[in-house]
Amino acid sequence: MEISVKQIAQILGGRVVGDDSAMINTVAKIQEGGQGAISFLANMKYEEFIYTTEVSAVLVSEGFEPKKEVKAALIYTEDAYSAFTALLTEYQRMMSFRKQGREQPSFIHDSAQVGEGEYIGAFAYIGENVKIGSNVKIYPHVYIGDNVEIGDNVILYAGVKVYADCKIGSYCTLQGGAVIGSDGFGFAPQSDGTYKTIPQIGNVILEDHVDIGANTVVDCATMGSTVIKQGAKLDNLIQVAHNAVVGKNTVIASQAGISGSTEVGDNCMLGGQVGLAGHIKVADRTMIAAQSGIAQSVKEPGTKIMGSPAIPSGEHIKAFMVYRKLPDLQRKVAELERKLLADS
Amino acid sequence: MEISVKQIAQILGGRVVGDDSAMINTVAKIQEGGQGAISFLANMKYEEFIYTTEVSAVLVSEGFEPKKEVKAALIYTEDAYSAFTALLTEYQRMMSFRKQGREQPSFIHDSAQVGEGEYIGAFAYIGENVKIGSNVKIYPHVYIGDNVEIGDNVILYAGVKVYADCKIGSYCTLQGGAVIGSDGFGFAPQSDGTYKTIPQIGNVILEDHVDIGANTVVDCATMGSTVIKQGAKLDNLIQVAHNAVVGKNTVIASQAGISGSTEVGDNCMLGGQVGLAGHIKVADRTMIAAQSGIAQSVKEPGTKIMGSPAIPSGEHIKAFMVYRKLPDLQRKVAELERKLLADS
Amino acid sequence: MEISVKQIAQILGGRVVGDDSAMINTVAKIQEGGQGAISFLANMKYEEFIYTTEVSAVLVSEGFEPKKEVKAALIYTEDAYSAFTALLTEYQRMMSFRKQGREQPSFIHDSAQVGEGEYIGAFAYIGENVKIGSNVKIYPHVYIGDNVEIGDNVILYAGVKVYADCKIGSYCTLQGGAVIGSDGFGFAPQSDGTYKTIPQIGNVILEDHVDIGANTVVDCATMGSTVIKQGAKLDNLIQVAHNAVVGKNTVIASQAGISGSTEVGDNCMLGGQVGLAGHIKVADRTMIAAQSGIAQSVKEPGTKIMGSPAIPSGEHIKAFMVYRKLPDLQRKVAELERKLLADS
Repeated sequence: MEISVKQIAQILGGRVVGDDSAMINTVAKIQEGGQGAISFLANMKYEEFIYTTEVSAVLVSEGFEPKKEVKAALIYTEDAYSAFTALLTEYQRMMSFRKQGREQPSFIHDSAQVGEGEYIGAFAYIGENVKIGSNVKIYPHVYIGDNVEIGDNVILYAGVKVYADCKIGSYCTLQGGAVIGSDGFGFAPQSDGTYKTIPQIGNVILEDHVDIGANTVVDCATMGSTVIKQGAKLDNLIQVAHNAVVGKNTVIASQAGISGSTEVGDNCMLGGQVGLAGHIKVADRTMIAAQSGIAQSVKEPGTKIMGSPAIPSGEHIKAFMVYRKLPDLQRKVAELERKLLADS
Repeated sequence: MEISVKQIAQILGGRVVGDDSAMINTVAKIQEGGQGAISFLANMKYEEFIYTTEVSAVLVSEGFEPKKEVKAALIYTEDAYSAFTALLTEYQRMMSFRKQGREQPSFIHDSAQVGEGEYIGAFAYIGENVKIGSNVKIYPHVYIGDNVEIGDNVILYAGVKVYADCKIGSYCTLQGGAVIGSDGFGFAPQSDGTYKTIPQIGNVILEDHVDIGANTVVDCATMGSTVIKQGAKLDNLIQVAHNAVVGKNTVIASQAGISGSTEVGDNCMLGGQVGLAGHIKVADRTMIAAQSGIAQSVKEPGTKIMGSPAIPSGEHIKAFMVYRKLPDLQRKVAELERKLLADS
Repeated sequence: MEISVKQIAQILGGRVVGDDSAMINTVAKIQEGGQGAISFLANMKYEEFIYTTEVSAVLVSEGFEPKKEVKAALIYTEDAYSAFTALLTEYQRMMSFRKQGREQPSFIHDSAQVGEGEYIGAFAYIGENVKIGSNVKIYPHVYIGDNVEIGDNVILYAGVKVYADCKIGSYCTLQGGAVIGSDGFGFAPQSDGTYKTIPQIGNVILEDHVDIGANTVVDCATMGSTVIKQGAKLDNLIQVAHNAVVGKNTVIASQAGISGSTEVGDNCMLGGQVGLAGHIKVADRTMIAAQSGIAQSVKEPGTKIMGSPAIPSGEHIKAFMVYRKLPDLQRKVAELERKLLADS
């Protein structure tokens, strides 16, 4: 995808000094990029590179006056760094949503409805009665089971699997290999030591603006719904068990696991490899350090906890400092015993 | 899928009061469901809802006498809750196994044998000399490598991958994205710091009634077989390394990991995110708390262990209670030292 | 695949006593194998089996003199065990690379280049401008995004996903379901509690001789590259976050996680379920015990660490021995207090 320097200046509301017809197809650091790249100069520590850079355009802040000749086109905006960030965001949005049309072969059930602006990659599967909004990008090898509903502006990357009856809101992005709606893990022990499967007939609801990482799994509810609320962001390889609820704008790092029926509040932060027991509630704005294990409900909003089992972070850090010195402490106690014995 | 109230009553051995021709297509809570749903009334706390519910049928226990008019058809059985559970189980079985026929395009090698009652989803792949029993449901994007053998009444959900030469028993269910038979992780260190791959030419055997969770991985053996024994249930995102053995009716929660050549006994329970070292044996009926790390064999059947490294659960809980108070303990020892010094 | 005893002897530089026209199609233990199998006799403890074995050929060391009649063909080499290992390696290499040709349907963009000796399984997807070297094996359901470059002698097993713009060297093997290049997990908190996605426009580079396990995920960089250096071996279900670097010949066990921008040195060993915080550096040859959590950089090459948070392994083991006895220690301190009080 190529776009001219002039078009970029228009998007950013900037003005161009130099060749505004130059075509841009990538972004790069000023000291590394070549022809076709756009970069930025915000920190004057890097000024020297603007006179030698091979990039085709550089974003600079109003007030910048070159001391030597500059080959690249300059785009002046109020703040070069903000402009670059805005450009990056727009660039990624365009790249992510640029795929259009339907590749062959794909499988789209006659009863399925797909909105405009769609991309349906080869080998994508769309089942019975599926309803998909507009501007949805479905990459190759995506599986969408029967009766699934998906909003607008959603991206399902390669190999995403959405089981039957699940619902996905708008502006959601699911990375490759994520599984939504797999059967919850429920088995009733029998008197002979075997287990009988407990039916899992619920679904999963992902609300709007939810992001799901690669190979992350969200199980369907036993009955009702497992829910990931609006704006929640889940990293890769996370487990969310049946009937769990993840609150609004809660962020969960990679490889964390949430057991069945547990409810995580809004605006929480869960570190990597954290484990939550089943049937507990975690208050809003709780912050859980990486690798912690949470066995009981967290009642106070804004609590910071750490460890396995988790305790308040400050308490854990102090206890751990003594833990490291335990052999010393043991020695001291032994010595005190000896002394006391000698005294008595 | 629709079924009449009359048919449901026949399946459950119940009798109908009301419209037995009403058609049922889902199950729901009595206070939530609408037309086409069936529900149950077991706890009389909820009796009020039976007079206002919109569901088409309600399971009630013999002896229930409505105090007002009931719109829904009533199905009388001995125990409404048991009947509902039985119905749910039947419902899920029917839903899971309802898919029939072969969608196109799929890839089925000429030499492959597939029994009756099959579902083969679009983009499913069945390799050379594969032998598949009857009533097997193969969802889209499933990969079955050469020479794989699969029993009867098996469900492989979307994107399951079974490498060549593996064996799957009857009544097994594998959730989406599970990988069976990937190469074991074996590398021999060389004198120059590099590693040479150790050939992994074994397979995986899943015995009957084994369930495997979404994105779980079971590696093939170096030679011989990695074995998951009859009735074992594995949750999502679990790792089972080469030559490991998981015993009968053992249940393993999400994100646990079993290292190479380790043998887990029968009827064990492993919590989430548990890690087992390689080349150890875990006795029957061992219960391992979530996030524990097991470095050594567990010899006594029925042992309960906890922590990383794991020790008996009771011991761990007591030690942890002191751990939390370590700064106190340290202070006390320092004070004792001072006093003793002052005394002497 | 079959090969004659004569051919095997030629590969190994050995000589045959017996029927060198016998055809071999598998390897097996001497006490277990049947016709068509080859085995070895290295430890004379197993000599008895050579006189009763059903295998078609046995590798023996020069100097071996049968005491009875042997039905199997004997292949004499200097050292039977080394010969068997070499044979196994060759066998697996041949098995892994034996797939040839293109199955239908597959999706190969007109602009994609694929070298000789390729296998492209049914339902494989190869995007725009992809460049693939020679002798590359692409199993069914593999997804290769636009502009990806892949070297020679690479195997991508079923369902591997490689996002656009990533680069894979030569002699790499990726197990089923691995995801390379998914969007890094970057979100900027906004004043209203929501998060804005930080664009992730970088890629992933896997250098030569890198192995990636099943369902492992390597995220793309925010800008630039996430890099797995030459000879590194990653097990299953591992997380490598954006902009991380894994050093040469570093071996990482299953379910470990490396956070964003962290750099792991060369020849390190990371145990299973290890977690590394973001933005830290781990020195060469560091050895990290399973389940450890590394919050800070490791500066000294060759350090051995353990625990969460991790401390030097020796220190951890000593501290843990006291930890187990903490209730005793607490009791002793209480007793000392009592005594001291009594004394004073």
